[in-house]
Amino acid sequence: MTTKLSLNEVIRHARGEEKADLLLKNGRVVNVFSGEVLRADVAVAGGLVIGVGEGYEARETIDLAGRVVCPGFIDGHLHIESTMLTPYQFARAVVPRGTTAVVCDPHEIANVLGLDGIHYMLDASEGLPVTTFVMASSCVPATHLETAGASLSADDLATLFDHPRVLGLAEMMNFPGVLFGLPDVLAKLEMARARGVPVDGHSPGLSGRDLQAYVAAGVRSDHECTQLEEAREKLRAGMYLLIREGTTEHNLAELLPVVTPQNARRCLLVSDDRHPDDLMARGHMDYSIRLAAREGLDPVTAIQMVTLNAAERFRLWDRGAVAPGYRADLAIVDNLEKLNVELVFSGGRLVAEQGEMLPAAPPEAVAAPPSVKVDWESLSLAIPAGGDRARVIGVFEGQIVTEALELPVKQKDGLAVADLDRDILKMAVIERHNATGNVGLGFVKGMGLRRGALASTVAHDSHNLIVVGTNDADMTAAARAVAEMGGGLVAVAGGEVVGRLPLPVAGLMSGEPVEAVRRQMDGLLAVARDLGSPLHNPFMTLSFLALPVIPTLKLTDRGLVDVNKFDFVPLFV
Amino acid sequence: MTTKLSLNEVIRHARGEEKADLLLKNGRVVNVFSGEVLRADVAVAGGLVIGVGEGYEARETIDLAGRVVCPGFIDGHLHIESTMLTPYQFARAVVPRGTTAVVCDPHEIANVLGLDGIHYMLDASEGLPVTTFVMASSCVPATHLETAGASLSADDLATLFDHPRVLGLAEMMNFPGVLFGLPDVLAKLEMARARGVPVDGHSPGLSGRDLQAYVAAGVRSDHECTQLEEAREKLRAGMYLLIREGTTEHNLAELLPVVTPQNARRCLLVSDDRHPDDLMARGHMDYSIRLAAREGLDPVTAIQMVTLNAAERFRLWDRGAVAPGYRADLAIVDNLEKLNVELVFSGGRLVAEQGEMLPAAPPEAVAAPPSVKVDWESLSLAIPAGGDRARVIGVFEGQIVTEALELPVKQKDGLAVADLDRDILKMAVIERHNATGNVGLGFVKGMGLRRGALASTVAHDSHNLIVVGTNDADMTAAARAVAEMGGGLVAVAGGEVVGRLPLPVAGLMSGEPVEAVRRQMDGLLAVARDLGSPLHNPFMTLSFLALPVIPTLKLTDRGLVDVNKFDFVPLFV
Repeated sequence: MTTKLSLNEVIRHARGEEKADLLLKNGRVVNVFSGEVLRADVAVAGGLVIGVGEGYEARETIDLAGRVVCPGFIDGHLHIESTMLTPYQFARAVVPRGTTAVVCDPHEIANVLGLDGIHYMLDASEGLPVTTFVMASSCVPATHLETAGASLSADDLATLFDHPRVLGLAEMMNFPGVLFGLPDVLAKLEMARARGVPVDGHSPGLSGRDLQAYVAAGVRSDHECTQLEEAREKLRAGMYLLIREGTTEHNLAELLPVVTPQNARRCLLVSDDRHPDDLMARGHMDYSIRLAAREGLDPVTAIQMVTLNAAERFRLWDRGAVAPGYRADLAIVDNLEKLNVELVFSGGRLVAEQGEMLPAAPPEAVAAPPSVKVDWESLSLAIPAGGDRARVIGVFEGQIVTEALELPVKQKDGLAVADLDRDILKMAVIERHNATGNVGLGFVKGMGLRRGALASTVAHDSHNLIVVGTNDADMTAAARAVAEMGGGLVAVAGGEVVGRLPLPVAGLMSGEPVEAVRRQMDGLLAVARDLGSPLHNPFMTLSFLALPVIPTLKLTDRGLVDVNKFDFVPLFV
Repeated sequence: MTTKLSLNEVIRHARGEEKADLLLKNGRVVNVFSGEVLRADVAVAGGLVIGVGEGYEARETIDLAGRVVCPGFIDGHLHIESTMLTPYQFARAVVPRGTTAVVCDPHEIANVLGLDGIHYMLDASEGLPVTTFVMASSCVPATHLETAGASLSADDLATLFDHPRVLGLAEMMNFPGVLFGLPDVLAKLEMARARGVPVDGHSPGLSGRDLQAYVAAGVRSDHECTQLEEAREKLRAGMYLLIREGTTEHNLAELLPVVTPQNARRCLLVSDDRHPDDLMARGHMDYSIRLAAREGLDPVTAIQMVTLNAAERFRLWDRGAVAPGYRADLAIVDNLEKLNVELVFSGGRLVAEQGEMLPAAPPEAVAAPPSVKVDWESLSLAIPAGGDRARVIGVFEGQIVTEALELPVKQKDGLAVADLDRDILKMAVIERHNATGNVGLGFVKGMGLRRGALASTVAHDSHNLIVVGTNDADMTAAARAVAEMGGGLVAVAGGEVVGRLPLPVAGLMSGEPVEAVRRQMDGLLAVARDLGSPLHNPFMTLSFLALPVIPTLKLTDRGLVDVNKFDFVPLFV
């Protein structure tokens, strides 16, 4: 229990011998234990729900006039960095949506800053009205084919478990490493097994005995299911099914038919990755509940998925229910149909009202160390022509999978250069963590720029400085502009910065409010369209071009990667 | 995970790269996650289920020919002492019924031997095929109105938690003490709260704000519900509902209508107290499942209640399911309708077959210290006549509640004596733990003996030596005979022992097999009938006559207790 009340005080309050701090009268309470919605008053004292029923008195009373009291929502799996918001700004975006706890895997910032990055997330989320639990990032770096800012061993991760908000081992993306029994991978699972903490999974398409092995190794959740049969098999194998509805990954409608009254307890709704515009326009867990209900799920079942089920999965024994002794984390909604969140309480305190987080003492500013360190001296983006035909990354609108093309390249003065007529642009991935001077160079088709360049420090999973452009001068200018901001996104044309979104925290997160971030992003996207890109979000596309675990052809700071071979290949054929 | 296999070996087995130890082929597997019954093979290695599916090979294969594979059953609340069997003999009785784990509250032996008694239960159950988990007994002694063999403080209980099989704080029977905020009671709850362990409840009839307070104090289960509305309220308040079907307490049929698909996850089936004849004739959790199914519950839901639900309640993360990485505790039944248990596996080992536990190295004999210490020198059962009318305990067949009568008593030579014509017998409760010389004397109506005396060291909750009889000589002889056996039950007539059931372990448990205990008990009951008692089981009735928490009039070693006043009252009016 997280309260300053003694047990005796809790009991006296609950018996009505002492006035409660707060009484929510005339509400309809979602009872996640029984699956009912019941008329009752809710009494709060010392940050706890101390009684649900009748006859309580309090120093402050709010008449809910039939509104619905839900337990505060819990997002069981997300990467806060994907919102581009710092934890405080993230709280401002999601708390008004009823979210009072999240379980995050900080693996984006961990790839940049290692343990310092994880500690930054813990420190910067201290005391926020959305309790920010952390799963220790299991796969930093994601592969040996790229240079990340850090490498986290089992021993490194073990140091995190002294923190009360660190719950377990985050998504074990390296499932092949588990199956092949790689010692450093198993060491992390052994660490989790010894501590008896939950281990999250990430195993798209894994099936049969390989799935059994992955689960037997201790991995008991998955959020990567895209097919009904896949979800069914994983659920039967003992995995919690984390049904994802992210900005780019939409799995909810597809997977919902797997849910039955008999298995719903093993299902959660999670966001994984949501972008600022999506958070603003649609919402967070409130949106997932609404969407699930629209797809035919009983809304109380959907609410259970983001409350009691999530609490059980992550063993948060004082959360996920409106019941005596539970933390008074509450989301008050107008009704179960519209699910508009009107009031939000965290630990008994009113923290959001009518869509706005209430002003509170802002958290102490937590500084993240600088993260963009590039060896500019040795940097050259020139590609000496090594042949007539090159391997070219082909991008598709809205997909993170690429195509491996082999195309003739334009040459000039002994160099291979961009060919605007055929939409073949130059691309660079510049190592930005330790100024190693590493730079991967290549070509990409489908980005559509007619002039200028785009650069970004958001490039999964190592988050090196990724640049695409029509000419070296603009590409270099864009890369330098990003570095000068301490990280972020820029667009350059004719040597001038024509659009920017600074992300000074690890090159991943802004300190600005979600509205500002969205505005800056919208501005950047307009500029990119102006520069000729037909893509909905070329920065999003760009951010996956360095990720060598997604087929087919990718570019890291160490070179061009054929993902199917899981190895480097020469640029020229 | 409880296996000697390394993680790497687990994975290799699960992938089928190594032969499993055992393969159960052609079974229908109860999937407690999905609520389905699915055709699949089950592969076992290193004591774990390592795969459920197809394509496994093993050194040993059993063709189940369509039989049903259930997770081993878990009894979430019982007192092993009530079976009168030592842990080893208890295992012999319940393992063939499919029970592979129990969560026991050893509060009977704790009242006799204190921490030594709890350690006896832990030691004597070490390595048994039924994993015997222990909840630390919260209410020893049960009241201040009697002399128990021990008194356990929060500090005493805290020492138990070093043991890996001690899970939490056992049923907090002193719910008035919780509500009144008694410091020694709260200290135990604080201890549990600080350790973050589950606390079981015991709160017959508790409702409204008092119930809210009890739950707010951290108590999150109840097994004492007798009414549907009571069960519903407790479940809604956040308590796990432990639906009891004991030998004397039959709550299952009454409570089952409360179970819905939405709340079933919060329900368990438990036995609390089962007697030897009942275990033999009906069974254990297998009986509860059959009974629930007969009452209309989906048998898979019933199985979930004694597997996954129990495992979740007690946070046994590697039990309660047939799934990769879980302990291979399995109950193989003929079908879901009859639910005859044919094979039982514990940690992958075949431990019972066709109703018999398989011979294994019996556990090392664990000695319990002697427990019957009476000051015979000072003992006198004579009751000087202190008035014409006395308070007399009136018993009812099959109930533990008594009636407070006020009746004229027969006198002889200045003493109040038994009056056989009116079925008023003498009764004594002799302190037997520390030879204090305490003896409570009184009268009882309804036991029906025409001659002789009955004596027993089973007398809830302090388990003093309780005697009822027609004359002092037979009563004394019976008490001495019990003491000579080191505890147990005897019947005496004409100064001779005419029936006996030795219970040398704390005066509560026999070391004999369940069949022998039942035979001895049946013999004793026949003798008691022969002595004139019309009661179904006069020893059972006797065992509750010293329990001063059950209305109305009771006798302890310290005197006659009016339970409604919760204080002593004089024998004579």
